[in-house]
Amino acid sequence: MIGGDGIGPEVVAEGLRVLRAVHPKVETTEYDLGARRWHRTGETLPDTVLDELRGHDAILLGAVGDPGVPSGVLERGLLLRLRFELDHHVNLRPVRLYPGVRSPLAGDPSIDMIVVREGTEGPYAGAGGVLRRGTPHEVATEESLNTRFGVERVVRDAFRRAARRPRRHLTLVHKNNVLTKAGDLWSRTVAEVAPEFPDVTVDYQHVDAASMFFVTDPGRFDVVVTDNMFGDIITDIGAAITGGIGLAASGNLDPSGSHPSMFEPVHGSAPDIAGRQLADPTATVASVAMLLDHLGHQEEAERVEAAVAASLAERAGSGSGAMSTRERGEDLAARAAG
Amino acid sequence: MIGGDGIGPEVVAEGLRVLRAVHPKVETTEYDLGARRWHRTGETLPDTVLDELRGHDAILLGAVGDPGVPSGVLERGLLLRLRFELDHHVNLRPVRLYPGVRSPLAGDPSIDMIVVREGTEGPYAGAGGVLRRGTPHEVATEESLNTRFGVERVVRDAFRRAARRPRRHLTLVHKNNVLTKAGDLWSRTVAEVAPEFPDVTVDYQHVDAASMFFVTDPGRFDVVVTDNMFGDIITDIGAAITGGIGLAASGNLDPSGSHPSMFEPVHGSAPDIAGRQLADPTATVASVAMLLDHLGHQEEAERVEAAVAASLAERAGSGSGAMSTRERGEDLAARAAG
Ligand SMILES: CC(C)[C@H](C(=O)O)[C@@H](O)C(=O)O
Ligand SMILES: CC(C)[C@H](C(=O)O)[C@@H](O)C(=O)O
Repeated sequence: MIGGDGIGPEVVAEGLRVLRAVHPKVETTEYDLGARRWHRTGETLPDTVLDELRGHDAILLGAVGDPGVPSGVLERGLLLRLRFELDHHVNLRPVRLYPGVRSPLAGDPSIDMIVVREGTEGPYAGAGGVLRRGTPHEVATEESLNTRFGVERVVRDAFRRAARRPRRHLTLVHKNNVLTKAGDLWSRTVAEVAPEFPDVTVDYQHVDAASMFFVTDPGRFDVVVTDNMFGDIITDIGAAITGGIGLAASGNLDPSGSHPSMFEPVHGSAPDIAGRQLADPTATVASVAMLLDHLGHQEEAERVEAAVAASLAERAGSGSGAMSTRERGEDLAARAAG
Repeated sequence: MIGGDGIGPEVVAEGLRVLRAVHPKVETTEYDLGARRWHRTGETLPDTVLDELRGHDAILLGAVGDPGVPSGVLERGLLLRLRFELDHHVNLRPVRLYPGVRSPLAGDPSIDMIVVREGTEGPYAGAGGVLRRGTPHEVATEESLNTRFGVERVVRDAFRRAARRPRRHLTLVHKNNVLTKAGDLWSRTVAEVAPEFPDVTVDYQHVDAASMFFVTDPGRFDVVVTDNMFGDIITDIGAAITGGIGLAASGNLDPSGSHPSMFEPVHGSAPDIAGRQLADPTATVASVAMLLDHLGHQEEAERVEAAVAASLAERAGSGSGAMSTRERGEDLAARAAG
């Protein structure tokens, strides 16, 4: 458990409550990481802590950060470091409009897709450099690193997921008309893996067009596979169209199981409402469902998923939106324990 | 005039009709560029044509491309080559919901912003490389090149535009917590230019959050300044929330006037409806208004803008959506001349 900062510890506590409700035997260790630790010690992720984390089955993370930490310190030093060190190459983000939840899109369209975002390469590699910083001649570069190995494993994972879904449709999102080198690698890889999944239909959209279609016609997407940066952007559009970032769950997976996968709500630490039991733990609880599914506890995962869906449907009907973080967690735990 | 392919020549003809209605003395030269020329000759933009184009005051482009041209050929060889060779560093994209136009967002929120997208560097530079193509060991890189010179001129242009608008608000959109090198250059440049524009308030959003807010709260944006790739994505979201890409205008500007600026609708060549007078020339006509404004004909630009607004408002009221391309052009020309 990495509660983190702001509302992080509050929502993680409820995630754990629901986890225990369906799986009483879970053992947990708490790690103090995030903005508070950085302010106190200057550390983001000590190697010893990373080594300990490697020994666990999964990580549940709340949210990290506060306005006092310079941009990039915790992102590169903690969140991305965990994703890279633990080889979280499948960054899985369901984009689903639950029955009863209002979309900002007129007519509440039906939205049920899953985005498989590559998590360990691309523009997130941290490569690049700066010359003559602070002068009129400054040059800054960012380098997107893409490998056949890295692309192929995430493409294959996305095909597998598509093959298990009713619509069996996979969309590659990239910008291969401009990023011709990486785009060509992605497009060729999809084309070469496709014959292994003859039941899956394959589509391609440029990232700009896909971003538009997320708003004008989200129903056309089933499984989407995309690069790390494009995935970051389109999954936030996905969160926006399905009721907001407060409901969005995510899993940072190493599907091989060699490293612990990490589950986290997509929202931030929301320091303005921290410590007041105002945060909605639903996204964390939905992330717990993903954790259970990843560890092979499908039946328990489905119970947690169903608890989330039922709670959201009931809220819509009754306007019972005003539960405290803890009350919401207890309600979800009771439903999941059922 | 570069009519281009598909519906391009049809919409450009109407753009020219409206231009002549407010500015009868305009002289034009037609250039045959795009997919048809490439199929015929293999050429995208011969140097001699580029040199001729340099002698003009402005370029009006319809749309280029057809499904028979490999991805990237016309984009890199023609469209981006024009932007780079003619130093179109300000890629200007108004995002405005005209009265009467339906947004896919519930409640038709008020949307009136302008995106200043950098147009001559960033991930569009074409830098990067490929090793071991087609093997399991393939590596493909894309390099984003950013310079203080290139960032500062577009940031200053955006501040100037913000200072002239009623709300005087500028938002930098980047991803400086992950792309720390380029992001730091952009953030520092905005911070250093800001004191020259004390009346402009400055904000920052990560591109993922901005993409979300374009959907959940677009009214918060006034002027947005951003990098080439982020601008590509968020302006398509902008088009989506303001009635679709069919209404989106754009200008590729060299504000210094050293090179001709280029104006084009954001939509593509739509080969499926080409040659049938089915295309809506409104986005091209709105691009003509930007052309007039850029060349210093503000009064004429405003008349064309007003014609577009009046036509859209009337369509909403009467359901008179079914004009041919030419009828629509004639209607807009009559309104603008009137
Ligand atoms: C916090 C940041 C590094 C992260 C990302 O860009 O991946 C976040 O936006 C996300 O989507 O998980
Ligand atoms: C066609 C393509 C090269 C272009 C871009 O990516 O800039 C287009 O999407 C646009 O926005 O004008």
